[in-house]
Amino acid sequence: MDNSAKANMTPNPTSNLAPNLTTVEQMEADAAKLKELACAACAETWDDRRASQQPQCVFGESGICCRICSMGPCRITKKASRGICGADAHAIAGRHYLRMAAAGSAAHSDHGREIAHVLHMASPDGNYRVRDEQKLLRLAAEWGVETEGRDIYDVAREVSEIGLAEYGKPFGKLRFLSRATKERQELWERTGVSPRAIDREIAASLHMTTMGNTADPEALVRQSLRVGMADGWGGSMMGTEFTDILFGTPTARATESNLGVLEKDMVNIIVHGHDPAFSEMVVLAAETKELADYARSKGAKGINIAGLCCTANEVTMRHGVRMAGNFLQQENALLTGAVEMICVDVQCIFPALAALAGCFHTKFVTTSPIARIPGSIYVEFRPETAMEQAMQLVREAVGNFENRDAAKVFIPASKQAAVVGYPNEQIIRELDGVTNSHVDARGSYAPAIDSIKAGVLRGAVAMVGCNNPKVRPDYSHIEIMKELLGNDVLIVASGCSAQAAAKAGLMSREARFICGAGLRRVCELVGIPPVLHMGACVDISRMMLLVNEIADDWGVDVTQLPIVGCAPEWMSEKAVAIANYVVATGIDTYLGIEPQVKGSERMMELITEGTRKITGAGYVINTDPRELAAAILAGIEAKRAALGI
Amino acid sequence: MDNSAKANMTPNPTSNLAPNLTTVEQMEADAAKLKELACAACAETWDDRRASQQPQCVFGESGICCRICSMGPCRITKKASRGICGADAHAIAGRHYLRMAAAGSAAHSDHGREIAHVLHMASPDGNYRVRDEQKLLRLAAEWGVETEGRDIYDVAREVSEIGLAEYGKPFGKLRFLSRATKERQELWERTGVSPRAIDREIAASLHMTTMGNTADPEALVRQSLRVGMADGWGGSMMGTEFTDILFGTPTARATESNLGVLEKDMVNIIVHGHDPAFSEMVVLAAETKELADYARSKGAKGINIAGLCCTANEVTMRHGVRMAGNFLQQENALLTGAVEMICVDVQCIFPALAALAGCFHTKFVTTSPIARIPGSIYVEFRPETAMEQAMQLVREAVGNFENRDAAKVFIPASKQAAVVGYPNEQIIRELDGVTNSHVDARGSYAPAIDSIKAGVLRGAVAMVGCNNPKVRPDYSHIEIMKELLGNDVLIVASGCSAQAAAKAGLMSREARFICGAGLRRVCELVGIPPVLHMGACVDISRMMLLVNEIADDWGVDVTQLPIVGCAPEWMSEKAVAIANYVVATGIDTYLGIEPQVKGSERMMELITEGTRKITGAGYVINTDPRELAAAILAGIEAKRAALGI
Repeated sequence: MDNSAKANMTPNPTSNLAPNLTTVEQMEADAAKLKELACAACAETWDDRRASQQPQCVFGESGICCRICSMGPCRITKKASRGICGADAHAIAGRHYLRMAAAGSAAHSDHGREIAHVLHMASPDGNYRVRDEQKLLRLAAEWGVETEGRDIYDVAREVSEIGLAEYGKPFGKLRFLSRATKERQELWERTGVSPRAIDREIAASLHMTTMGNTADPEALVRQSLRVGMADGWGGSMMGTEFTDILFGTPTARATESNLGVLEKDMVNIIVHGHDPAFSEMVVLAAETKELADYARSKGAKGINIAGLCCTANEVTMRHGVRMAGNFLQQENALLTGAVEMICVDVQCIFPALAALAGCFHTKFVTTSPIARIPGSIYVEFRPETAMEQAMQLVREAVGNFENRDAAKVFIPASKQAAVVGYPNEQIIRELDGVTNSHVDARGSYAPAIDSIKAGVLRGAVAMVGCNNPKVRPDYSHIEIMKELLGNDVLIVASGCSAQAAAKAGLMSREARFICGAGLRRVCELVGIPPVLHMGACVDISRMMLLVNEIADDWGVDVTQLPIVGCAPEWMSEKAVAIANYVVATGIDTYLGIEPQVKGSERMMELITEGTRKITGAGYVINTDPRELAAAILAGIEAKRAALGI
Repeated sequence: MDNSAKANMTPNPTSNLAPNLTTVEQMEADAAKLKELACAACAETWDDRRASQQPQCVFGESGICCRICSMGPCRITKKASRGICGADAHAIAGRHYLRMAAAGSAAHSDHGREIAHVLHMASPDGNYRVRDEQKLLRLAAEWGVETEGRDIYDVAREVSEIGLAEYGKPFGKLRFLSRATKERQELWERTGVSPRAIDREIAASLHMTTMGNTADPEALVRQSLRVGMADGWGGSMMGTEFTDILFGTPTARATESNLGVLEKDMVNIIVHGHDPAFSEMVVLAAETKELADYARSKGAKGINIAGLCCTANEVTMRHGVRMAGNFLQQENALLTGAVEMICVDVQCIFPALAALAGCFHTKFVTTSPIARIPGSIYVEFRPETAMEQAMQLVREAVGNFENRDAAKVFIPASKQAAVVGYPNEQIIRELDGVTNSHVDARGSYAPAIDSIKAGVLRGAVAMVGCNNPKVRPDYSHIEIMKELLGNDVLIVASGCSAQAAAKAGLMSREARFICGAGLRRVCELVGIPPVLHMGACVDISRMMLLVNEIADDWGVDVTQLPIVGCAPEWMSEKAVAIANYVVATGIDTYLGIEPQVKGSERMMELITEGTRKITGAGYVINTDPRELAAAILAGIEAKRAALGI
């Protein structure tokens, strides 16, 4: 660890107007009270289950357990250096790692595909319309789709068909690759990590890892990069683009975050998951006079929609819908006893919610064939009838208000104000606000680049990823962010990391007071919070474009920028896909949870150092958040030094 | 178990002219001798590794270990009925089961895709030509491709493009589904097991099984059927069709099987794997005068190509290339010390071959980016230069002949004559041979159906699948086959099961003498062996068509036919995909290895009984081959009784 970085790890002396942040200790105190209610209601939560899972299997944790054929399971031990087929620790760990990346890529990309299908059936008088015509037209132009004199919905249909073809076209590479810098494109082509069709890379990854195929860890890591690219520069990017077209590209807006956004006197409906197609309709349904009146008729003051996980990120950025919390808070939200309905779509949904909802009056509604959960009410979302279905569900939630048991209700007061909604377009808009329109080029990242060059900002970090009880939930996110902010490092955040920031208060403009003097000045000048909410986990594709555009504007390669990624509490296979495309994009990635490959020295070497020879970037892994923060700062300073700034 | 079936389990009394079969005991004696050589050469083999893997993990074996997110691994124990997210034994086992099916489907289908790409670049003067124009024209007509007056290679290109589109088309279901009976098609549509694009089902399966998605075992089993269908009625069927078009639809031909096919005085080259595109070229290269002369110049009597695993099945059916053995024999082949080169493509290749080849002079050559194995010589197969590459490799193998160490050579004498090559077209041809062309319709299965109705044949069994050291290798295959033959049950076989039959001598026409009187009469009349070699494991798609065509000709539903499938020693994820599409096709499937779900009662119920409510078929699982054979016979008799025959 760099000494200068270590020296900076004390609370920042410039914080003379310390904002009223929520600490992890306060969050834990709320959680503890809710836990009492859980015990009273005979409900178990993740911490009970985590306790009962101890000790966890060291073979699995180290990645040296193989279950890909029924000769096994095999595992690498002192007396057994190979599985029955002869696969060694490196092959076994490498295959599992690639499968995680492939599954993560499949999840994100399938989400993107669903949105593409919704765009395909958009119509001016249907449930789904084109909200951002400019973005559609830009994408049409990029893809060579004729737009002149055409109905916008014809254009939308053709664009969505081209997008859908990216999943399965038999020839060629992904279209979005051409959005990267020339250097990246050439490197990807040269190193064999340019993906073909998205689904093909997923299928090829599974094929490579079936019994009797690839045992070479280097080839497995290379394919992990490629299948990750199929996510970040394929399915996820598609999801982001089409979501913006359908529901509007987000703009900065105020909202609130944490369980305190639940309302004692209102019908509380939580939307949870990732795909915004249905939750958008739930939000719109709740805003109808008809249902608001109905809620009042039932003795409620109205209908309060709150979000969880990335569905929250999607609807908060476009509607200001308030966020009840992130991944490991999903059970706590139900434990308030004040939730009439939790309506979920896909990904990161605890199957435990069914039993937990059963301890209260809460209706647990699943809506996707991808996420069928026993004990839930299943209402299969169909784009054709989505608004009708949403109206019906909200109606049922309202009807359920009278079943709420006041004796079981406890809503923690904690909540924080946040400004959210900083996609690249918004960032550019903010930067344009501080340029001198007479002398400066507008629509560029020049002001940000200049700040970094001048050292006012030391660099930027993309904080992403989940919660994971392997570390203290939210603590790593929040403590690392505070450390970075204190050291003049701007943060862009997405997913559960963004929500941790929002809960802590780091997305308020007041959070500038815990920042170093340089970052604080930038926040004041531009009028932004020091942690910019860029969206859901699919929106990390925005970050990839951001970094490539900055590299282009700066005239350096992505790997040279003092910009890195950090997932301090990741848990999902999606994070493995993300980490791979971030590294493939040339961005060092700092992980606070160990990938499950440590039983293989060769794999550990490959993911931390080996990829640097391929893409110029790699992982830095440290489960101690203070040490991880110090490593990030040291990494940024090293990149600055190499650039001579 | 039905008593009448039990009564029939004694050796068949009609076997008065017992053929000279090779017993498993004889095979094991050969293996034991080879094992001595292995010890002398300090080489380890699968049985050493299997011993060192004992005891195997019961959590993995029961399917109740979850490694799909990095909160885990979690496992279901007495004190922990759920993983950290709340997934129970049923969700965990179900997800793993679906992932196995998806991976198997990916492997087979990707094989089919590779062949489709080869067909796409076929040309009259290239390495790859259209050998079966009639089959191409039939497929073109089926898919509505114009053929009139067109160059056959233009037709091939268009057909291959349509085939490739089946992997990734954004809309619609698979084309080959329309080859099934009307009943099946309607049932698949009604029950939601009709697959969309092949890769999409694979990606959807991964998405469903990522953290926080489907936890409902019934939904997981249904998707397993669907992703299996994407293999059997998608990728595998494509592989079979295109392989026939490119390399010729197999016809009956004589060959030999077992390690005795290796030649002491010749250059021995083994082709091993599954995809015939490159091995076909190796076979052709070895037949050139140039290389035969070169071999003689090196003191060899010539070049002897032998096959292993399904690559063997592919080349034996089209060229009569002799078969050295099946999956668990791959190391024994090298232990003979007489193999100059083993040249592999994809799937079922022991990574252990690298170290083993190093104990001898054998060159171990990998050729596919899908199967990169450390310690091998990697020559990436390219269709454009395949013949040139094959010539070079064969030349190197010949050059390696002089490095053979005579002191290390031991080739077991065992080999059996076999007649192979019975795709549906050949079966129809044989049946036409016994119809009276004046009164009977030709080109139908009527003679076979009549034999079954009359009870001359009691039914038919498709014997398929791998070897697995969890049971005595080859023993289950061979003992079950003998039992079935003795009870007048005709066998069609593929993959490692076909090779077990061939090694034992059950694919010789003389094997009729161990059959029941009825089957023996049929074999004599038609001139076939009692076990018909239908091809590689992708060719199980042929069996699906066979059964559907028989059902059509008979006028009953597939589920009513006294025809079942049996995989007594399966080990690969491909077998899970296969078992799923066989069951989805309405064919009961008898397994001699337990799927890794027995930690979930619900999953066990679903795969043995639950699928019967969806598709009309299910698994029967029994690890005792004698009991499994009895169950098959009882199952066939029950179907006969229900038909009133």
